[in-house]
Amino acid sequence: MVPVSIAGASGYTGFELIRLLSGHPRVRISAITSRANQGESLSDVYPAVRGHCDLRFEDTDPDVLTRGAQLVFTALPHQAAMDIIPSLLDRGIRVVDLSADFRFRDASVYEAWYQKHSAPHLLGEAVYGLPELHRERIANARLVGNPGCYSTSVILGCAPLLQAKLIVAESIIADAKSGVSGAGRGLSLTTHYCEVNDGFRAYKVAEHRHTPEIEQELSFLAGKPVRINFTPHLVPMSRGILSTIYAQLEPGVNEQHVAEAFHAFYASARFVRLCPSGHFPTTLQVRGSNYCDLAWKVDSRTGRVIVISVIDNLTRGASGQAVCNMNLMLGFPEDCGLEAAPWQP
Amino acid sequence: MVPVSIAGASGYTGFELIRLLSGHPRVRISAITSRANQGESLSDVYPAVRGHCDLRFEDTDPDVLTRGAQLVFTALPHQAAMDIIPSLLDRGIRVVDLSADFRFRDASVYEAWYQKHSAPHLLGEAVYGLPELHRERIANARLVGNPGCYSTSVILGCAPLLQAKLIVAESIIADAKSGVSGAGRGLSLTTHYCEVNDGFRAYKVAEHRHTPEIEQELSFLAGKPVRINFTPHLVPMSRGILSTIYAQLEPGVNEQHVAEAFHAFYASARFVRLCPSGHFPTTLQVRGSNYCDLAWKVDSRTGRVIVISVIDNLTRGASGQAVCNMNLMLGFPEDCGLEAAPWQP
Amino acid sequence: MVPVSIAGASGYTGFELIRLLSGHPRVRISAITSRANQGESLSDVYPAVRGHCDLRFEDTDPDVLTRGAQLVFTALPHQAAMDIIPSLLDRGIRVVDLSADFRFRDASVYEAWYQKHSAPHLLGEAVYGLPELHRERIANARLVGNPGCYSTSVILGCAPLLQAKLIVAESIIADAKSGVSGAGRGLSLTTHYCEVNDGFRAYKVAEHRHTPEIEQELSFLAGKPVRINFTPHLVPMSRGILSTIYAQLEPGVNEQHVAEAFHAFYASARFVRLCPSGHFPTTLQVRGSNYCDLAWKVDSRTGRVIVISVIDNLTRGASGQAVCNMNLMLGFPEDCGLEAAPWQP
Amino acid sequence: MVPVSIAGASGYTGFELIRLLSGHPRVRISAITSRANQGESLSDVYPAVRGHCDLRFEDTDPDVLTRGAQLVFTALPHQAAMDIIPSLLDRGIRVVDLSADFRFRDASVYEAWYQKHSAPHLLGEAVYGLPELHRERIANARLVGNPGCYSTSVILGCAPLLQAKLIVAESIIADAKSGVSGAGRGLSLTTHYCEVNDGFRAYKVAEHRHTPEIEQELSFLAGKPVRINFTPHLVPMSRGILSTIYAQLEPGVNEQHVAEAFHAFYASARFVRLCPSGHFPTTLQVRGSNYCDLAWKVDSRTGRVIVISVIDNLTRGASGQAVCNMNLMLGFPEDCGLEAAPWQP
Repeated sequence: MVPVSIAGASGYTGFELIRLLSGHPRVRISAITSRANQGESLSDVYPAVRGHCDLRFEDTDPDVLTRGAQLVFTALPHQAAMDIIPSLLDRGIRVVDLSADFRFRDASVYEAWYQKHSAPHLLGEAVYGLPELHRERIANARLVGNPGCYSTSVILGCAPLLQAKLIVAESIIADAKSGVSGAGRGLSLTTHYCEVNDGFRAYKVAEHRHTPEIEQELSFLAGKPVRINFTPHLVPMSRGILSTIYAQLEPGVNEQHVAEAFHAFYASARFVRLCPSGHFPTTLQVRGSNYCDLAWKVDSRTGRVIVISVIDNLTRGASGQAVCNMNLMLGFPEDCGLEAAPWQP
Repeated sequence: MVPVSIAGASGYTGFELIRLLSGHPRVRISAITSRANQGESLSDVYPAVRGHCDLRFEDTDPDVLTRGAQLVFTALPHQAAMDIIPSLLDRGIRVVDLSADFRFRDASVYEAWYQKHSAPHLLGEAVYGLPELHRERIANARLVGNPGCYSTSVILGCAPLLQAKLIVAESIIADAKSGVSGAGRGLSLTTHYCEVNDGFRAYKVAEHRHTPEIEQELSFLAGKPVRINFTPHLVPMSRGILSTIYAQLEPGVNEQHVAEAFHAFYASARFVRLCPSGHFPTTLQVRGSNYCDLAWKVDSRTGRVIVISVIDNLTRGASGQAVCNMNLMLGFPEDCGLEAAPWQP
Repeated sequence: MVPVSIAGASGYTGFELIRLLSGHPRVRISAITSRANQGESLSDVYPAVRGHCDLRFEDTDPDVLTRGAQLVFTALPHQAAMDIIPSLLDRGIRVVDLSADFRFRDASVYEAWYQKHSAPHLLGEAVYGLPELHRERIANARLVGNPGCYSTSVILGCAPLLQAKLIVAESIIADAKSGVSGAGRGLSLTTHYCEVNDGFRAYKVAEHRHTPEIEQELSFLAGKPVRINFTPHLVPMSRGILSTIYAQLEPGVNEQHVAEAFHAFYASARFVRLCPSGHFPTTLQVRGSNYCDLAWKVDSRTGRVIVISVIDNLTRGASGQAVCNMNLMLGFPEDCGLEAAPWQP
Repeated sequence: MVPVSIAGASGYTGFELIRLLSGHPRVRISAITSRANQGESLSDVYPAVRGHCDLRFEDTDPDVLTRGAQLVFTALPHQAAMDIIPSLLDRGIRVVDLSADFRFRDASVYEAWYQKHSAPHLLGEAVYGLPELHRERIANARLVGNPGCYSTSVILGCAPLLQAKLIVAESIIADAKSGVSGAGRGLSLTTHYCEVNDGFRAYKVAEHRHTPEIEQELSFLAGKPVRINFTPHLVPMSRGILSTIYAQLEPGVNEQHVAEAFHAFYASARFVRLCPSGHFPTTLQVRGSNYCDLAWKVDSRTGRVIVISVIDNLTRGASGQAVCNMNLMLGFPEDCGLEAAPWQP
């Protein structure tokens, strides 16, 4: 059992890591930390795991996190992550970071959308943790920047089409919808029950910070700079992201080309499932799992393809993918600890 | 008090008509009909109005519907509507039809998306019941084809931009999300509680029947044929539609041009509200009302405009708009009986 | 149009008052106040009423509230209410108070469950604002203590049985369930969307502060001191209360006696509806209205009666009842401004 | 890997069995049957398990079910279960029946609440499958009658108090609230999304069929006949049951006696958790797990104890408990395949 620790474990992403790692057959959790809940027992904060996982939140300190651990998950806000990660790496510990701090290859992009980067020297070695795109590099990385939830759903929906050059890269529009857990456990009027219930809405229109991250990976796939429109929406539900992606087809591209590109690209993907023709996925069918389910439709009237991509934002969009990255880094099977079926209903 | 009747009154659209008309100061309901619930009292089917509106469902028969009524609302499935409407008109009664049967000027378009039309001779005089576009013609119509719910939200979001020629007509993409009441009160697995809750999904991708209806009106506004992509989604909530509309801006068009177009087009619109810059509406803020709230954002990175349009699918998207059309036809103030504030929370 | 003002108007209860009063045919709102939102326009806080009610929040100050107003609604937290109300009364203004501060005839009861009372001299004249019990006294009151939401549903469910002496008073158990709006618009983890959704729970078991208020009125009805068990629960929905009330029948009491007591007690009640035998109400059928719908069942196996009582917690449980009390105080018809049908779905 | 089969596997209870058994380390599913979905692949009916569990529904036939299986789960409607179970037992196969058909020791009780029993000779040997009460007998049973969902939550909440004779048996009132999945996947207006959302309601007041089943087990615990009041309610959520149980304390019984009784009774219970004093559980904290979480409060004002009991209706209330019973019957650890943490949020 390999010991691993979690920094910032009291949010939903942290708790999802605890849920997954407490059932993982090859690792054990050596420490969980939280500045807000330091000193409290996990089961007082999350009664769901009383008698199931009896840990206590410690201070978010490098010594605590590396005490006997071989790998650290950092589920901290951006800025806080890059403040602590260099000292973890210096102690010879590998890191899967769930913040945005190490997702960008180019510090100037990060700084244009976020803030000054305090550890830009690490961006060169950090690997963007999307296994379908960077499996080999993840396995060898010291530092993995775990993708954003929206980014995961959009990139996986576009990748086959861009790589096979079937779509006009600059025509991509991603309209994404997320459950409320994506906004975390912190209190705000926008996540207050009575404001969410029966209240579907868009937010951060044309300025959400997952945009440059998606563009970085789509540009990598297209072999040229790609700019997209990305609009996030808040759905009255707890978990799940569905992204509806529109793109103009290159001349002559038909339904069969599109289907072949998806099947080829994901031929060996453990956690991507392609829906049968004519079936479109619901977020319910991936809930609690690491699956990304994809479907598409060619609209010959308009010459566009529409791709539907669903994930669980907390599992595939955050903690499940982080565990998958850990599995690759530690040489375990990719799905180790991630085999459970989705939850329905 | 002008007597009016409702055919097909036992569904959600019919009940919303009853709710609105039972509080309308200028009309009274002379008859409600329902094939499924014929003979039952309204309050047994909808206990909400016990002691409030004591009617009984009668047979959906022209004699019943026109018995003393001056205007009939037909809230029947398509086909059933066009089967009965000619006989209502023959009796000299005016009709607001909530089905799709009289929304199309061109029978061949209807027949391509629906079925054989049995009363094509009436299409020439039927008026598409969107007051912001056809107020004068509605006032004088014998027969109004009340718009579809999605169509209302999308057309109102595009109209100012198309009329002012600020966007590339063929670039329009409408990504729409609806509460479950849009699917009616009929039973199906897709509206079963446990399949909807936490289960956001797309449906009828690139083939929903509101597409040609939207295209008809957008073509009218653009002065040339327009084809769009339209994708409907089902949201785990009872009421509300939010449409996110994307379009490429014509060269040189900026935020100010867009704002001016919206303000000019809706300068005298009683039921369209423009959100302050930077505010995006939630479906909650129009619930139960006839408002359409609009917001937009110019994305200079991609040269596109994003419009957000919210309505209540049962009120503005169906029965509220039908009452508004009735008001215009009967010479009442446009908002007569529609003044109540939206419901929040 | 009689001018009235609202203190503490930015919470859900305050907004429900604004919704109802803005459509009331006999009054107009002269001022709304809020300490938290002072200076902001109502439509920035509640976009639902943009263009519909264009007021601005002022400071919660007696001069503001009484400036031209004939009656003030105080929708303030307890303590804050009793701090300001004496000065309103001193200015000759009548008050409907939605806090708990003036619901108790006995200051010691208030002080045992809440805190020191700062205006006990007013408790003698304050009237408990439940029209079905105290209609005459409300009409003549200077100060009405508007009942709690749970209290309204439980008292109305028990009243006929206690008055007719059909049940054993000390056997009453009220198990109540409320939508989340009852907890207000203030932020807390217990009203955070992801903690509520799919998370039904009980709270303040055997110590909720509506208990003594219910007991006061039931004792009044029974003619002797009554103690009950009362348990509130939080339901994943925005609006509505359903109370399930259990009581032991006195010897010889049967279904018919129970039915007769309910029908006699509520024979002339405008806002209480008795369900047909065998039908049990849902909270949906009273949503947005001032109705209380009641049903009951005699269980001959156990000798108990079970009463089901549903209300909308924001309307009948707070602001609708407050408007009804105002109507009585100002000599308007009891249902003036409260005639709209419940919202469904 | 022991082969087991599932009769009636296409409902929610059946699918929950598939979910749990497909991840169970000691068994494999040899066949799933469904009359409604015969011939269809599981993943067409439940896309959630596409690529995860590739079975096909077969006919609900004894030969299919016993083909190589050592144990059969019957998740059929009552009547259908007792029609097929004798032939399964005759083939030497052990059965866990999730219907009500074999929960009663006395055929006359079954027949008073359900219908004529067609296999009364098996009632003597069938064991009521609540491990906390009948662990030894379950282990040796040929036929286990798996408890009802409500029954599980109520019996576990009352058992310690009745056995320790701390409460007046005839005073028990159980007010229970369930998520909608308890009503199954069959279509009905009462489980239609728009009728459930924001629509909390009671049903089958004083006549729900879980009543006699609860009474049977409470009578067993009390050592004398017990009659209770039981009221079920439908909560707008998918999963979870919370039961609020009221009982009069015997003279002299205090908080400490109650706490000791609970701790003693459940000292070695793997799947019952007692909440710390002052904490009351939410359904969210047991979702997807086999836990029953219990809390209680002594109300010295009224001399009653209130017990709160939460379970997941599909897991502990049906399929998880069935797997637990299978574990006992096959000599596996009680929690084999049931170790996963609850799902939150």
